[in-house]
Amino acid sequence: MIGPIDPPTRLLMGPGPINADPRVLRAMSAQLVGQYDPWMTATMNETMELYREVFGTRNEQTFLVDGTSRAGIEAALVSLLEPGDRVLVPVFGRFGHLLVEIAERCRAEVHTIEVPWGEVFPAEQVEDAVRRVRPKVLAVVQGDTSTTMCQPLADLGEICRRHDVLLYCDATASLGGNEFEMDAWGLDVATAGLQKCLGGPSGSAPISVSDRAADVINARKHVEAGIRSDDDVDHGERIASNYLDLAQVMDYWGPRRLNHHTEATTMLYGARECARLLVEEGLAAAVERHALHGRAMLEGVQGLGLRVFGDVDHKMHNVVAVEIPDGVDGDRTRGVLLEEFGIEIGTSFGPLHGKVWRIGTMGYNARTDAVLTTLAALEQVLRTTGGVTAAQEVYAS
Amino acid sequence: MIGPIDPPTRLLMGPGPINADPRVLRAMSAQLVGQYDPWMTATMNETMELYREVFGTRNEQTFLVDGTSRAGIEAALVSLLEPGDRVLVPVFGRFGHLLVEIAERCRAEVHTIEVPWGEVFPAEQVEDAVRRVRPKVLAVVQGDTSTTMCQPLADLGEICRRHDVLLYCDATASLGGNEFEMDAWGLDVATAGLQKCLGGPSGSAPISVSDRAADVINARKHVEAGIRSDDDVDHGERIASNYLDLAQVMDYWGPRRLNHHTEATTMLYGARECARLLVEEGLAAAVERHALHGRAMLEGVQGLGLRVFGDVDHKMHNVVAVEIPDGVDGDRTRGVLLEEFGIEIGTSFGPLHGKVWRIGTMGYNARTDAVLTTLAALEQVLRTTGGVTAAQEVYAS
Repeated sequence: MIGPIDPPTRLLMGPGPINADPRVLRAMSAQLVGQYDPWMTATMNETMELYREVFGTRNEQTFLVDGTSRAGIEAALVSLLEPGDRVLVPVFGRFGHLLVEIAERCRAEVHTIEVPWGEVFPAEQVEDAVRRVRPKVLAVVQGDTSTTMCQPLADLGEICRRHDVLLYCDATASLGGNEFEMDAWGLDVATAGLQKCLGGPSGSAPISVSDRAADVINARKHVEAGIRSDDDVDHGERIASNYLDLAQVMDYWGPRRLNHHTEATTMLYGARECARLLVEEGLAAAVERHALHGRAMLEGVQGLGLRVFGDVDHKMHNVVAVEIPDGVDGDRTRGVLLEEFGIEIGTSFGPLHGKVWRIGTMGYNARTDAVLTTLAALEQVLRTTGGVTAAQEVYAS
Repeated sequence: MIGPIDPPTRLLMGPGPINADPRVLRAMSAQLVGQYDPWMTATMNETMELYREVFGTRNEQTFLVDGTSRAGIEAALVSLLEPGDRVLVPVFGRFGHLLVEIAERCRAEVHTIEVPWGEVFPAEQVEDAVRRVRPKVLAVVQGDTSTTMCQPLADLGEICRRHDVLLYCDATASLGGNEFEMDAWGLDVATAGLQKCLGGPSGSAPISVSDRAADVINARKHVEAGIRSDDDVDHGERIASNYLDLAQVMDYWGPRRLNHHTEATTMLYGARECARLLVEEGLAAAVERHALHGRAMLEGVQGLGLRVFGDVDHKMHNVVAVEIPDGVDGDRTRGVLLEEFGIEIGTSFGPLHGKVWRIGTMGYNARTDAVLTTLAALEQVLRTTGGVTAAQEVYAS
């Protein structure tokens, strides 16, 4: 017989997901109301208002996609890109590859530029590529947890306006913990998730869409046969997904309240509380908190004699990649931290696999006790990984 | 300043979403663990095991899609259907139109047959169409809340096997409250949601995939560039969605645990608890409970002198469409029920718009007190909708 949910206690100090803020989980335990209940639609409007502040925007079209952060990315790209449209993706880690992969599935013509893992792009390199490719969309990750790098965006927005390019940004890993100014930087679409600096569980993807991007998307609107009225006229190339069709999702969140999916109410409660807590703290204060704890973790691991991967000047505040010292078994270290201390740190992907641990300090876990406990445990495990471990194995065998 | 979540108390007796079972909300308040924590992967496996029992299947590939029920539908269709593939959709309500709409966006060649709203298809009519169209996939809704009808499936499975057609079923509104025997009926893919008879919130879509359907889907597998190994070879026409690519999602839930999305852990906890409670009750007992309360509601509204829409012999157990009597303002009645009694009943779509209310008895709300309270309030409101209301309006003006 399978029993009720009863997870072990873990301190999640990897690159995300991290522990949810208990206040977010409490908000999510509230009972449901109907989809079109006046309280529900008011709550949806409040959620839009809160995320405008989180994204730093006045975009009317600021709402949630009902899925993980990846659903938000795909919703943005599949709604913006028609088959054959050119898109330029600067790739500086795994999640750049993900943008490429999703854009290819949209049947877009995908162009990439790359820098080695651990670096970011100078604005001129991006502008050269924009000039060469003349894309409809520039799609870029702000913070890529695979390398810990944070791509500066302010100049990219200006370049995109100059060349009449739409700028999409995946801010999943960075939003709330690093400076993000959607309007000031001239971004057209940005998406995120709850499971990083926002301190919630994965499963809801906040998104904001500029007016000019909304126009591009609405030019492709096709209302569903089951609910269309005589006034609904089909436009342009139909968006390839129904679930992730932002033209329809905007009609659901907008004054028309046209039925689409059934809003994931519990995730909405969680997403709203994540944003509410950030707004209450103040976005600048939240970024400063992530900067502080990120610096403490960085200098902490350096103080243990460990080396840090990548261009630290362009590191996100909320995650650091720590080189695994010679002679240390990285997976074994992670295993002991998890099993004996209940602390999770991250492994890594692609070219960094087996070479670095990724340690996060974000959302609810951007706290002094979380940082110090993790460093103390790591120091302890590293100390015992040498001779003591060998002796323990003698006894165990 | 926007305050914490504090919804009004509602008894949700519409066609869904309905109130979540408080035990499900409690399960969802548990803290997160890491994606690859041994406890997490064990919990995912338990969830698969529980949903096998809910779907009535031994399919290895039984898991969750991280989105609302509509995400599950689209995942099934976009993963099965290649551009140009023929699909046959018997349409008997709004959600048949949704299957058409989604299949069209997959660029499939879509064929439909229709019966008037309030009826279901005789098996012979479906077989004739299968013989004529020779589809790759027959895509059918089991229970369509727009009409309250429940399409018999047992014969359709046999027809599909005979003609070598894959059978997909959208069981969102019916699963858990009406008989459903995936293996015995020969279904290939079935999807659901939590917000109907399963007693949870919207936001997770349980799915089960037969071995032969999984083979069709895996023949289109393309592993992402960011995480692929040298052994990964691309096959067939790439699935048009990354997020809803079941070949990748099955690799994430399977022994390979290949990173895809970040599992929506809180929704997973909820989905697991929904299934656990159903399995504990016993699926047959749960169906019987829905039959009992559905019959009580049906005879209750008839006892109020109201007429019921559609072929009642083929009605789902969990929802009834009640004709709005002449001279009664349907929306006003719903408004008074909501505002004065805190009870929500449903409006309706398309050809039934303004003609029927839809009243649900499902999941946590398939309970005697919920049925009797709803009937008492409805009786009271109907009684006062005539002369008293006219008088009240005189006083109000």
